[in-house]
Amino acid sequence: MMSRHREALAGLLRLFEPPVPRAVGAFVDGVGADDAWSAIIARAAPAEVLTAAGPRLGDEDAADLRDRAVDDLRRAADVGADIRGPGDDDWPADALAPLDWVVPYDKCRQAWRPLALYRRGGRWPSRSAGVVAIVGSRAATPYGVRTACEIASDAARDGACIISGAAFGIDAAAHRGALQRTWGDTAPTVAVLAGGVDRPYPVAHRALIEDVAEVGAVVSEYAPGAAPARHRFLVRNRLIAAFAEITVVVEAGRRSGSLNTAATAAGLGRTVAAVPGPVTSAMSVGCHDLLRNGRADLVTAWADVRALMGPMRVDDAPHRPGERATDGLDLVAARVHEALPSRGSATLEAIAREAALPAPDVLGALAALHADGLARRTESGWARARPLDAGGRGRAA
Amino acid sequence: MMSRHREALAGLLRLFEPPVPRAVGAFVDGVGADDAWSAIIARAAPAEVLTAAGPRLGDEDAADLRDRAVDDLRRAADVGADIRGPGDDDWPADALAPLDWVVPYDKCRQAWRPLALYRRGGRWPSRSAGVVAIVGSRAATPYGVRTACEIASDAARDGACIISGAAFGIDAAAHRGALQRTWGDTAPTVAVLAGGVDRPYPVAHRALIEDVAEVGAVVSEYAPGAAPARHRFLVRNRLIAAFAEITVVVEAGRRSGSLNTAATAAGLGRTVAAVPGPVTSAMSVGCHDLLRNGRADLVTAWADVRALMGPMRVDDAPHRPGERATDGLDLVAARVHEALPSRGSATLEAIAREAALPAPDVLGALAALHADGLARRTESGWARARPLDAGGRGRAA
Repeated sequence: MMSRHREALAGLLRLFEPPVPRAVGAFVDGVGADDAWSAIIARAAPAEVLTAAGPRLGDEDAADLRDRAVDDLRRAADVGADIRGPGDDDWPADALAPLDWVVPYDKCRQAWRPLALYRRGGRWPSRSAGVVAIVGSRAATPYGVRTACEIASDAARDGACIISGAAFGIDAAAHRGALQRTWGDTAPTVAVLAGGVDRPYPVAHRALIEDVAEVGAVVSEYAPGAAPARHRFLVRNRLIAAFAEITVVVEAGRRSGSLNTAATAAGLGRTVAAVPGPVTSAMSVGCHDLLRNGRADLVTAWADVRALMGPMRVDDAPHRPGERATDGLDLVAARVHEALPSRGSATLEAIAREAALPAPDVLGALAALHADGLARRTESGWARARPLDAGGRGRAA
Repeated sequence: MMSRHREALAGLLRLFEPPVPRAVGAFVDGVGADDAWSAIIARAAPAEVLTAAGPRLGDEDAADLRDRAVDDLRRAADVGADIRGPGDDDWPADALAPLDWVVPYDKCRQAWRPLALYRRGGRWPSRSAGVVAIVGSRAATPYGVRTACEIASDAARDGACIISGAAFGIDAAAHRGALQRTWGDTAPTVAVLAGGVDRPYPVAHRALIEDVAEVGAVVSEYAPGAAPARHRFLVRNRLIAAFAEITVVVEAGRRSGSLNTAATAAGLGRTVAAVPGPVTSAMSVGCHDLLRNGRADLVTAWADVRALMGPMRVDDAPHRPGERATDGLDLVAARVHEALPSRGSATLEAIAREAALPAPDVLGALAALHADGLARRTESGWARARPLDAGGRGRAA
């Protein structure tokens, strides 16, 4: 049964390229997907929204637009995928909460939260079991592949859920490691695609992606048939970072896209970890940079990753004991906190540059962080402060 | 010419096993080596000192004891070594300053500063050029050997001085790397032995040790002929840690002796760095432990080590700009500061245990650290505080 609600979600995903302009996010959030969809196809939505929809809205009439949405749902159903949006019972609201509407992305103000998600396979990553993103270079070495596979396998054995892309190298190794352990009733592994949920990419991973969909889930915020365009990988990365409690970079060259996922995860207030490797390996340079600059914790095996995660939760209570002092921050504050140097202090200008936020926003966030005991004034600017309860999370020396 | 002064130094080194009891250190420090020696051989020294000397003093008369000392100096001279002590013009007082007399060592109160040092080769490590300890496992892998050799070679090319032991594995690789660059007028590399300066150990490294003595220096605080006993390696390590501005652990198994050097260096307020390696290598476990626990900075090459060091100094001014806020601490305070967890807080008892110091001493040091802005009280104990000027030392993210 193609409900009007699901048609609306599919229609919105087809019209707007994520991350959607802020006005679009705010409109859909305000009136709900169903009314937003009706207003847009009737050309009755706010001008800003219609302008943003323009390139794909064209001069098609409402019936055609609805047909396309229904067709998208059919194409998704053909591969066993359905669509979910905010308000749906099993929408992963907790996981996506840090992707607030008003978050700056790529230096523009766009909405980070997805309007909806296609999902192939029956389950979202289980927050209660722990979700671990394992990311890294496509051009992984045998060392990286082996390490990713082992961490994923051991994590899945403990009931944790792996999340990654579906690329060659580390992504595939992570899924394969997790797929070695398919018992239990939580999804052992989830792939987030940068193209349509019906479009396995790379093609050589068609069978792997089928396997992931069967025991876990394959997720996409793109309309069926959408090409996995280059820019979509960076946009996709924020979903991996948001779903995962911890992002583990296994191997990364100096400019690996996985470093983008790591930076996004940090911006979302998530933990970032990196696996060291031989200093002679170009595929470990990115990991070593993260570790050297204090942007990631060093992990050598699943036990290390596990120690950086909160206690395996028995429910999805959003404010569990033992969480980080920074967990409750809104995303602007989290980004500003992240932009504070881990040693010494920085000027307002330097923090604004690092956070890619306007100085007034930074100042506001710093005031809030100061009130929370997470930032302090210094003679030369601002520095991180450490709250009394920030040390308890399984990180004792 | 065998001066009376040098005879006194040699005599003291033969009588007392380092680290010497505190009473011995205080006595020699108070009256000077020459008078201390005269008093001891005349059995006119304080009872505590004579008791400590007892096992080697025996019932030999003063003339025999002096003959032995003169004989030691002759044996040293046979391999081109001389002896130096505190007060001598070229005694490395600055480097050894953190080895204060009243420092707890191995949970007892012993004197850490050597009474004197034999030196084969014409130069001490040059503080002005920068001194880098490169240490690690005897059972190094080809990866570790290559990395140690490259870091040492690049450091020596920049005029820095390497210091290490003379063991198989990382020690030898470091010296060999430095010996590739023998130009310049500073010692490129220095070996500190755990036995007599005339007793190359391991024997297979006789030629290597000769080479080091020729362009750099071979140093020992043991009497000629002294065996490189197991316990002496740990005691020797403190000299390497003190001479070096930064100690780099290249490869270390979980219980490698080089971790002892690293801990000692940290206790002396020196910088500690570690080279990452494959997580599959048992020889990198110790390095990864150091990095994971925040006890070392990650370095992959000489450039990283260099960035952690102060500006290459043009003189030995003890209080240069850009030094760490913890540089001026006395050793008890430095050990207590080091014992504070890098994240979260710890109880007084836990800090005392970690620092191996009596609780009252810890409390006194914490009060001093608090006054200096380096420690702060928390609800559950004590935590590190970060002084305003601690971020400047080439470590910006």
